[in-house]
Amino acid sequence: MSLRCDVVAVGTELLLGQIVDTNSAWIGEQLAASGIDSLLQVKVGDNLGRVTAALRNALAEADAVVVCGGLGPTHDDLTREAIAAVMGVELRTDEHLVGVITKMFETRGRYMAANNLRQALVPEGATIIPQTRGTAPGLICPVSTPSGEKVLYAVPGVPHEMKEMLFRAILPDLLARSGEPSVILSRTLRTWGESESGLNERLDGVIARLDEVGNPTLAFLASGWEGLKVRLTAKGDTAEAATRVLDEWDAQVRAVVGEHVFGVDDDTMESVVLQLLRERGWSLGLAESVTGGLVAGRLTAVPGASEVFRGSIVSYASEVKFDLLGVPEGPVVSEAAAAAMAAGARRVLHADVAVALTGVAGPTEQDGMPVGTLCVAVHTPDGTTVRTFRLPGQREQMRQMSVITALDLLRRQLIAGS
Amino acid sequence: MSLRCDVVAVGTELLLGQIVDTNSAWIGEQLAASGIDSLLQVKVGDNLGRVTAALRNALAEADAVVVCGGLGPTHDDLTREAIAAVMGVELRTDEHLVGVITKMFETRGRYMAANNLRQALVPEGATIIPQTRGTAPGLICPVSTPSGEKVLYAVPGVPHEMKEMLFRAILPDLLARSGEPSVILSRTLRTWGESESGLNERLDGVIARLDEVGNPTLAFLASGWEGLKVRLTAKGDTAEAATRVLDEWDAQVRAVVGEHVFGVDDDTMESVVLQLLRERGWSLGLAESVTGGLVAGRLTAVPGASEVFRGSIVSYASEVKFDLLGVPEGPVVSEAAAAAMAAGARRVLHADVAVALTGVAGPTEQDGMPVGTLCVAVHTPDGTTVRTFRLPGQREQMRQMSVITALDLLRRQLIAGS
Repeated sequence: MSLRCDVVAVGTELLLGQIVDTNSAWIGEQLAASGIDSLLQVKVGDNLGRVTAALRNALAEADAVVVCGGLGPTHDDLTREAIAAVMGVELRTDEHLVGVITKMFETRGRYMAANNLRQALVPEGATIIPQTRGTAPGLICPVSTPSGEKVLYAVPGVPHEMKEMLFRAILPDLLARSGEPSVILSRTLRTWGESESGLNERLDGVIARLDEVGNPTLAFLASGWEGLKVRLTAKGDTAEAATRVLDEWDAQVRAVVGEHVFGVDDDTMESVVLQLLRERGWSLGLAESVTGGLVAGRLTAVPGASEVFRGSIVSYASEVKFDLLGVPEGPVVSEAAAAAMAAGARRVLHADVAVALTGVAGPTEQDGMPVGTLCVAVHTPDGTTVRTFRLPGQREQMRQMSVITALDLLRRQLIAGS
Repeated sequence: MSLRCDVVAVGTELLLGQIVDTNSAWIGEQLAASGIDSLLQVKVGDNLGRVTAALRNALAEADAVVVCGGLGPTHDDLTREAIAAVMGVELRTDEHLVGVITKMFETRGRYMAANNLRQALVPEGATIIPQTRGTAPGLICPVSTPSGEKVLYAVPGVPHEMKEMLFRAILPDLLARSGEPSVILSRTLRTWGESESGLNERLDGVIARLDEVGNPTLAFLASGWEGLKVRLTAKGDTAEAATRVLDEWDAQVRAVVGEHVFGVDDDTMESVVLQLLRERGWSLGLAESVTGGLVAGRLTAVPGASEVFRGSIVSYASEVKFDLLGVPEGPVVSEAAAAAMAAGARRVLHADVAVALTGVAGPTEQDGMPVGTLCVAVHTPDGTTVRTFRLPGQREQMRQMSVITALDLLRRQLIAGS
């Protein structure tokens, strides 16, 4: 039977809209991938009575509750007190935590205000989840309720601290309680170039076989102009066993949609393209019109881009295309103009490879071409490829779609030529 | 006495993390600006029993509840049924809504599936909030509870439909119930160039006087690399009265921090800069190194940028700076290099005004300059200004801070010269 784990996010700033609570959505996604239901998620302010009531109400319905935030050192961080009230126990100072926190301040050469030791308070009977990144430890707290023995997990509200604790301590604990194999691993295959229904159709056979074996599970995640993700989640008694399952089904997925898979997990289209160029020893130059610098901006977000990337001519005005890039006078949203822009960028920037983009982002048509038209030219030492696309969306969506569309065309040319 | 209005967001996709619930944070922000407390915000999936329970629980504590989502035409849109259960009434088909919905499909030349008429179902005793943008109407539903007469507002989950209904129908209804003046207007002054504590100190006197008069209220909103916002929120019996209050205090705020105010409400730094250039009749060219095209990307996101913006030379490799822009060989993170880049961009792009950026985004230092160094040159027909900044943050934050820092320097030069 599937466990139910609800979420309580603590912080007045969440209710005031000063911060959007993204933690609980992320936790819900991880729980779902592990086969655990999350049916109610609550935001409550920094008020002892209301936090306590929210935890009690959540525990009345769910088997487990993750409470996120309110573990800091200040007087309005009240989650520890609320948990002690729900457990019906006292808070005691954990001397080991006092040592850890004191030492952390000493190491950083910072003065420690006394209230920092509030973070060493632990409800009697709770287990500590040690911090690896900040000062506030997490807590695993058994709670006896009228509806049975439940568990409350407390984690800091700082997203990267919360995420690390969820993976390291909470998901394994939940899985142990659910009687499932204790290791869950995910792998995300990132795709571009095929619609969700198209991917679904190609993967029909794989999905049917997965339905029979039940492990791993497969999910589609739409990420807008970042493409579609195919996520495999495998259970196993060991990490090796789960990895073997992932490897096997990763290969089956790629057998039918491999050409559209541009990367895995944290890969981005830009990191993949830069790596392919690095492997070939080729430098890259751009000529951008419709995207106005966005392709260059994305590529240079990757540390080390300078090894490969020489620059971009953002030729927004037509005269810049004519004068600087040597585009023949005439319609500038055309395959001929894109090809001339690429040749010009390669020459002006002394690059081995050039990509050029020209198109119509709107709000109105241009050169008789409708909004959404994109012409891309990719010039490599192996040859020149030019394509025209019709992209959906308003101005900003169309421009972002253009970025990844052009980089994907470059990626395919680099792979085809290698 | 302050009213309490809690929020229930409906949708299984919110719990699965497929969509982050940004609606309730936004609603909380608007309620707070109107002096209404929102103390608990809940996400619940598309399940009739659980939606009904969530609404009952929320109404037990709050004076009013906004329920967001679950008003669509499909079988898992269950908010109407849940409201009817909470009110203890039947759903009836509203013939006027049937006409509106049928006509909308006819006008758009689309076939209407029968389930679309589910959106014409209204709980007995509820008032309809007419749609102006989509098909699902909103609802104002009086509810008798053991703790008194309460009200439930139902709005679609589509953000722009929800926001329009909140401003048009729900906030005025809540304010009428609270006995406050019925019009609330906000104005946000957007600033760049002064820290939150610095702004606070300059505004000390204004804030003290506001504390005495109580209307309008003033709030600081930090928006990271979009700057700090100073929001004034005024109440009045009429829109004219509230606007007069805003005008008076807007002037008082500007009297002490005016130089840092770059725009109002929906203005962005890029839209303001483009407008200033348009007024002077000057064209703009860029030379970008550290920002790698981000400045051009931001400017060209504004429709009509092409009237002013000619292009950008993204000179990421040093040789592009030397060869194309005519920067003298030597350290490229320097004020001299920035000035030469601006002169080169102006020449190559045939622009009246040029802005150049060179700096160190990290992860490692460059030319002996630490991560965070930014040199900006602004060249206008009135003269050249060069500045060096030390910006905080890791690579992406530093780059984004560089964009707005450079545009703000341009803005100040354009204003000073006019």
